[in-house]
Amino acid sequence: MPLKFRLLATDSETGARAGVVSVRGVEIETPCFMPVGTRATVKALDPDDLRAAGARIILANTYHLYLRPGADTVAAMGGLHRFMAWDGAILTDSGGYQVLSLAERRAIDDDGVTFQSHIDGARCRFTAESVVETQEALGSDIIIPLDECPPAGASQDDVTRAMRRTTAWLDRSIAAKRREDQALFGVVHGGLFEDLRREHAAEITARDRPGYTIGGLSVGESPDIMRAMARIAATALPIDKPRYLMGVGTPEDLVACVAAGVDMFDCVMPTRNARNGMLFTSAGRVQIKNAAYARDEKPLDATCDCGTCRRFSRAYLRHLFMVGEILAMRLLTIHNVSFYLALMRAARRAILDGQYATFMRDRLVREANVIPD
Amino acid sequence: MPLKFRLLATDSETGARAGVVSVRGVEIETPCFMPVGTRATVKALDPDDLRAAGARIILANTYHLYLRPGADTVAAMGGLHRFMAWDGAILTDSGGYQVLSLAERRAIDDDGVTFQSHIDGARCRFTAESVVETQEALGSDIIIPLDECPPAGASQDDVTRAMRRTTAWLDRSIAAKRREDQALFGVVHGGLFEDLRREHAAEITARDRPGYTIGGLSVGESPDIMRAMARIAATALPIDKPRYLMGVGTPEDLVACVAAGVDMFDCVMPTRNARNGMLFTSAGRVQIKNAAYARDEKPLDATCDCGTCRRFSRAYLRHLFMVGEILAMRLLTIHNVSFYLALMRAARRAILDGQYATFMRDRLVREANVIPD
Repeated sequence: MPLKFRLLATDSETGARAGVVSVRGVEIETPCFMPVGTRATVKALDPDDLRAAGARIILANTYHLYLRPGADTVAAMGGLHRFMAWDGAILTDSGGYQVLSLAERRAIDDDGVTFQSHIDGARCRFTAESVVETQEALGSDIIIPLDECPPAGASQDDVTRAMRRTTAWLDRSIAAKRREDQALFGVVHGGLFEDLRREHAAEITARDRPGYTIGGLSVGESPDIMRAMARIAATALPIDKPRYLMGVGTPEDLVACVAAGVDMFDCVMPTRNARNGMLFTSAGRVQIKNAAYARDEKPLDATCDCGTCRRFSRAYLRHLFMVGEILAMRLLTIHNVSFYLALMRAARRAILDGQYATFMRDRLVREANVIPD
Repeated sequence: MPLKFRLLATDSETGARAGVVSVRGVEIETPCFMPVGTRATVKALDPDDLRAAGARIILANTYHLYLRPGADTVAAMGGLHRFMAWDGAILTDSGGYQVLSLAERRAIDDDGVTFQSHIDGARCRFTAESVVETQEALGSDIIIPLDECPPAGASQDDVTRAMRRTTAWLDRSIAAKRREDQALFGVVHGGLFEDLRREHAAEITARDRPGYTIGGLSVGESPDIMRAMARIAATALPIDKPRYLMGVGTPEDLVACVAAGVDMFDCVMPTRNARNGMLFTSAGRVQIKNAAYARDEKPLDATCDCGTCRRFSRAYLRHLFMVGEILAMRLLTIHNVSFYLALMRAARRAILDGQYATFMRDRLVREANVIPD
């Protein structure tokens, strides 16, 4: 059993869950957020920054690592943990999402996906088997099988066809899997169709995986529909396995989807927004370029104990951002990642205290606040 | 006395000096290298990175800070140390060097320099008095008066005229100075003319400053001439004051100029080269993009104990650099800055041990080694 999950508490009012995922000796308290380390680095951060922010697990992208430096190179360097000097846990995605996003440059068939590299146009192919093999070379702790993610607005027929393909690819992934120390999750689709969500959940959970991924959400639908579908999808999954909602989302999305019974999240939002100067704070969103901060001695967020808020003023951060200094990228990313991780820790405490409904109402108002420019 | 200097040893064979500069309670062992923190950050590093590398003093650029965020903003934020959260010492230059580099966009007269901002073309003016005032607002520990730096190849008449102006501006700077907690150095010119170097040194040292800056070198002349002139210029200065050679240089330049009796250095080379993927190591220079490092598990420099060499392989650093990750900039800069600071510490030990000539011969061969691509 490469992955263990202990469910510690379920909030009776909302369905929010608190637990612990254990992989490779790493204990990950859930609900958890996984910072995105696309190319074997969470952009602008090093492993010490991640540890200081409280991260115990990160996500890395198979598609990007497959292209550069190549999974064989990562394997030759002792695997992803050693390559990037990260002693926490790592989840890799299948690469399918990135490949399918290539639009004109990919063709999907029952056996896999053929695509052109976005870097040099080289012709590449992913199959259920090759994606498992690549992730075995990368050596991540949790691996995701190739799936077909239909676009938002896909018809019931298209969604059903993608479900069948995803199930067939899961079976082939299980058969292809060699390493015993990696947990292969199952991916559940069904688009925005309630009955298909339940049907596919039954199909995938019959394969008894150590965890389940809710796929095909946050692809363009409204936040309300996404959150409602997340609840339907999560409720259809077994209670004794972790549930991972891919690519979600804003702080409000996380708070709402924890209530839907989701345990694990990843999203580029905290890191990407930081690089664009948009910060999440306990008082709402902040645009650091705002002239009001030019001589503001206060930290970004007085309630935050991250390495940025402990050391630097808004005035300094604004200066670094306005002149385009590299340090701005790192300091702002440290804050946003710390904010997301602290939000998940606070959610977990509220669940354990039986106060999640109150916590959620408070946060859904507060997080959506945009501090006026 | 805002600055104290204790000379601990002078190498009898070479003239290299070991000492301690004390400012604002900070003890700086000399010879020392000052990483360049142009816009209130040493590019890609934070204050913890600088401390870990062993830096006790950095340089910041008055010209750049005058333009953004403005010296008044830095003053309102409690001065440069507090603004950038740096508890070590800070030297600011006069801004004259940057202004004079603007070529077509500046005009010099006996009273100062009029120039156009490189950012928005705004018309600005620096005078001897305004430059002192700006540095008093910045609150650095060591300040440099406005000087005129003639270009390489300037005639004896032009160099003499620049010397006279530099001396007059020093007198006006001394008269304008209000703060008691900043050390105003004197700048010595004389171009590549031995007699003018000695003449100007006599003129400037008559003003009894707490330290002296050797200006007008490393502006295009050959390394041999630069080193020879540095020795002439340094020898003409009093032994009981620190000697600062502006803008120099390569590791070999530093080793040679320490032998010339120089105590303090600054240069953008370690930081700029790091961002371009060129690293200094004990075995010579390394281009990290070299394909030979793609699967090289060794640290950049096995003899280096910096945060980069302790944690990461050449393969990982090459990957980060090749894909353009922000973390590459920081990790490579940490190494190069650590290398320069370690080189100065090693030079100091050799001086104190009476072994500087041997140290220098060894290093001049070793540092110039370029590891073949």
